[in-house]
Amino acid sequence: MKLRVTVWGENVHERKHPLVAKIYPKGMHETIAEALREDAGLAVRTATLDQNEHGLTEQVLAETDVLTWWGHAAHGQVEDAIVERVHRRVLEGMGLVVLHSGHYAKIFKRLLGTSCSLTWREAGEKERIWVCNPGHPIARGLGRFFEIPHEEMYGEPFGIPNPDEVVFLSWFAGGEVFRSGCTWKRGAGKIFYFRPGHETYPTYHQKEVRRVILNAVHWARPEGEWIDSCPNVPWNQAPEKIVPQGETLHQAGEAGFR
Amino acid sequence: MKLRVTVWGENVHERKHPLVAKIYPKGMHETIAEALREDAGLAVRTATLDQNEHGLTEQVLAETDVLTWWGHAAHGQVEDAIVERVHRRVLEGMGLVVLHSGHYAKIFKRLLGTSCSLTWREAGEKERIWVCNPGHPIARGLGRFFEIPHEEMYGEPFGIPNPDEVVFLSWFAGGEVFRSGCTWKRGAGKIFYFRPGHETYPTYHQKEVRRVILNAVHWARPEGEWIDSCPNVPWNQAPEKIVPQGETLHQAGEAGFR
Amino acid sequence: MKLRVTVWGENVHERKHPLVAKIYPKGMHETIAEALREDAGLAVRTATLDQNEHGLTEQVLAETDVLTWWGHAAHGQVEDAIVERVHRRVLEGMGLVVLHSGHYAKIFKRLLGTSCSLTWREAGEKERIWVCNPGHPIARGLGRFFEIPHEEMYGEPFGIPNPDEVVFLSWFAGGEVFRSGCTWKRGAGKIFYFRPGHETYPTYHQKEVRRVILNAVHWARPEGEWIDSCPNVPWNQAPEKIVPQGETLHQAGEAGFR
Amino acid sequence: MKLRVTVWGENVHERKHPLVAKIYPKGMHETIAEALREDAGLAVRTATLDQNEHGLTEQVLAETDVLTWWGHAAHGQVEDAIVERVHRRVLEGMGLVVLHSGHYAKIFKRLLGTSCSLTWREAGEKERIWVCNPGHPIARGLGRFFEIPHEEMYGEPFGIPNPDEVVFLSWFAGGEVFRSGCTWKRGAGKIFYFRPGHETYPTYHQKEVRRVILNAVHWARPEGEWIDSCPNVPWNQAPEKIVPQGETLHQAGEAGFR
Repeated sequence: MKLRVTVWGENVHERKHPLVAKIYPKGMHETIAEALREDAGLAVRTATLDQNEHGLTEQVLAETDVLTWWGHAAHGQVEDAIVERVHRRVLEGMGLVVLHSGHYAKIFKRLLGTSCSLTWREAGEKERIWVCNPGHPIARGLGRFFEIPHEEMYGEPFGIPNPDEVVFLSWFAGGEVFRSGCTWKRGAGKIFYFRPGHETYPTYHQKEVRRVILNAVHWARPEGEWIDSCPNVPWNQAPEKIVPQGETLHQAGEAGFR
Repeated sequence: MKLRVTVWGENVHERKHPLVAKIYPKGMHETIAEALREDAGLAVRTATLDQNEHGLTEQVLAETDVLTWWGHAAHGQVEDAIVERVHRRVLEGMGLVVLHSGHYAKIFKRLLGTSCSLTWREAGEKERIWVCNPGHPIARGLGRFFEIPHEEMYGEPFGIPNPDEVVFLSWFAGGEVFRSGCTWKRGAGKIFYFRPGHETYPTYHQKEVRRVILNAVHWARPEGEWIDSCPNVPWNQAPEKIVPQGETLHQAGEAGFR
Repeated sequence: MKLRVTVWGENVHERKHPLVAKIYPKGMHETIAEALREDAGLAVRTATLDQNEHGLTEQVLAETDVLTWWGHAAHGQVEDAIVERVHRRVLEGMGLVVLHSGHYAKIFKRLLGTSCSLTWREAGEKERIWVCNPGHPIARGLGRFFEIPHEEMYGEPFGIPNPDEVVFLSWFAGGEVFRSGCTWKRGAGKIFYFRPGHETYPTYHQKEVRRVILNAVHWARPEGEWIDSCPNVPWNQAPEKIVPQGETLHQAGEAGFR
Repeated sequence: MKLRVTVWGENVHERKHPLVAKIYPKGMHETIAEALREDAGLAVRTATLDQNEHGLTEQVLAETDVLTWWGHAAHGQVEDAIVERVHRRVLEGMGLVVLHSGHYAKIFKRLLGTSCSLTWREAGEKERIWVCNPGHPIARGLGRFFEIPHEEMYGEPFGIPNPDEVVFLSWFAGGEVFRSGCTWKRGAGKIFYFRPGHETYPTYHQKEVRRVILNAVHWARPEGEWIDSCPNVPWNQAPEKIVPQGETLHQAGEAGFR
């Protein structure tokens, strides 16, 4: 069975700015989706901000194994109810690959719980991305490093919880460094953040970047399911025999608080 | 200089239920505060839900080094703006000690980003709390384990991100187990979750429990400050000399998105 | 292509003690291997202490994707050179599943760097193993918990580095708890420790235990390779142009130290 | 009471090479010790390879709260018995600050369990050390970054287990990056690795470097004690009443294996 991937794109810059439209005439999401469609093992669709429910209906998410996310100008326009829906699906096991300015997406901050802030500069400088973890599946097929000729700079400090794994570190010509490839697990869901991808550079046309995203999608595939619940186990269903002791508000007829 | 501690209590059960009022006549927060006041190195105040801004004004938080949090029946009544205020202070470096049913407090879920769900039972059963990490400062002064004669049960799975450290594990007479003492760091702030403390049992009068909370408050003291910002570093202020390359939307006169 | 598994067994108790031989007439390693052979996707062989190079020649290890390890009475008889060989293979990407008293195996202590000590008791008491991480692939196919009627007790504190993930926690009838299923990554290799399996009980005949080991073997499969090296990058091969500055011992004709 | 620090230095280069002796006439260990002696809260002594038991007798270690370690040319000459002694003390709670080429010291590899390999180049190039974790006590008193004018380069991949915290990342003029300040906890002991300090540059005379080492020594102070043991708890001393079930080798008169 194919791995079902939904590529989410904000699709705002591409329609407003000729500079971006020239690089990504069908939108960045279509370029990313095309990269993934080269792998016959994936079933890839796209979704965008302007669609009904941002294209992320209950059904679409139920049929999504891995979601990729690119947003920048319009994070605030993503409805909170949709963010909660995506959040729940990640905890249940859906993989999430967050790209570039998605560091400030509501869903990323919701899952990590921190500021997700960083330092930045738009000067089209050279970025060199180093592999810190050569045996990691997300680094498969890359050499010791690869370069992106022109990119926005993101620098430390990056306001994230300590990652489970750091796969990539970036060197910038202007003198900064950044943890550019990080993994976390939340509930049953795997999360990967990948730094590059500013809208005014052809980054998602570059083969190493496409390879990383493809690797990450495979890595983030669901491997189990964790449906949230907060069950009461009555005393007479406890694994060991016990006799209730003392009074409780619940026994006194109070409804449970949860 | 004294470590400044604010003990936050929901203070709802204590006023509504004679059973709880009998155990905690001044409220659970006062009992916890009294435990901490035995340490002359601490300056302890309390704050409750029903106060203006839940007692957590900007000034109170600015003057708080460590905040302890107990809530249960009224998580939903805590205003989101106050939650965001506490959240910001934790990232800046304020310590946070979350107690018992605070696992479902908005601030705890906000910081951890997961469901924080668990399994539960109110049967007044015995809980035995084991020290997993005998060298940890939060376990100081305890033996190999201690027992609480009557407590609510919390069982696994506990929907949390993998803790930085597990200090305590609980054994319950009814047959369950639980990660009862866990630490995380978010931004510059240290977070400790401690399981015991159901409102219908005299748990916060027990000396081992008081000792743990005291230890945790000391452990969570601020050790540095991290004020959130997401600064732009203009190209001519980069550490290394660079010349901007290519066009960007910003150079074309667009305002920054952040 | 099949996943190649080598099941290593100390095979000492089974030959010396009728009690153990009765439960595991072909040795514990053969019972574990049989459990894995039920999966047609695995190619399973065994190796034992008494074989040449403990059955773990360079060739065997080169052809092993995942190694399982059970030892108890004879940890000290495992040659250091073989331990180093296994260690290197784990860092390169071979998975390692360490069982029960293997907590004190040289290879486990070598990889984790800590004491790996614990508390223990042989009383044939009941163990209940709880799933903490229901979405984890190692917990696949299990319910909320399963029980082993008679087992040795292992209790906290367990002298390990904080695990990357805790999959199982044990409850013992005698009152202890234990982190019974833990994962770590070292180099490119995945490591899983699984607690049950004392030689005098038929634990490895129990279907849930067999399922966990099977799941763990699949989880630990290599996903990449990291061959150790500590390369010198001469100044004229640096990614950026630099001119060597100052004197160094090496330029003065000293041989490298590494 | 003063924090007791032992500064360990290999003291080989300083005596053999005029270039090194000129920069560190009393040895690198004395320069580091002098930096720490500026803090009246510390009681600082030094120890070197050529001393009896490398200056690390049982008594010296028993009186040491934090040990700093610099070695390079003579890692192999450090006796295994002394390494085991230091290892035990770290697990018990002694802090350990490992400097520069100490990444290949026996004690560092023993504690981390991995290769600890890296990429390197001696070209006296510029290193810029970024603070990733501005609220961390080890980063206290530093700005966003500091520079070392001439240093050896260490580059990724660095063969370490995922750090608990990354405090510093380095940018090198030659194009590489490195996780230059990392923390781990093993047993009750805190470990900090700090990258700079090649013997042919005056790095340990630089105030920011001295500040980091001072901060790290304070951070690594013992906060508890964990004495290794692997105790048997007889069935009649279990916390809960149990009756031994089934036969065991021990009951049959076998001596314990541990």
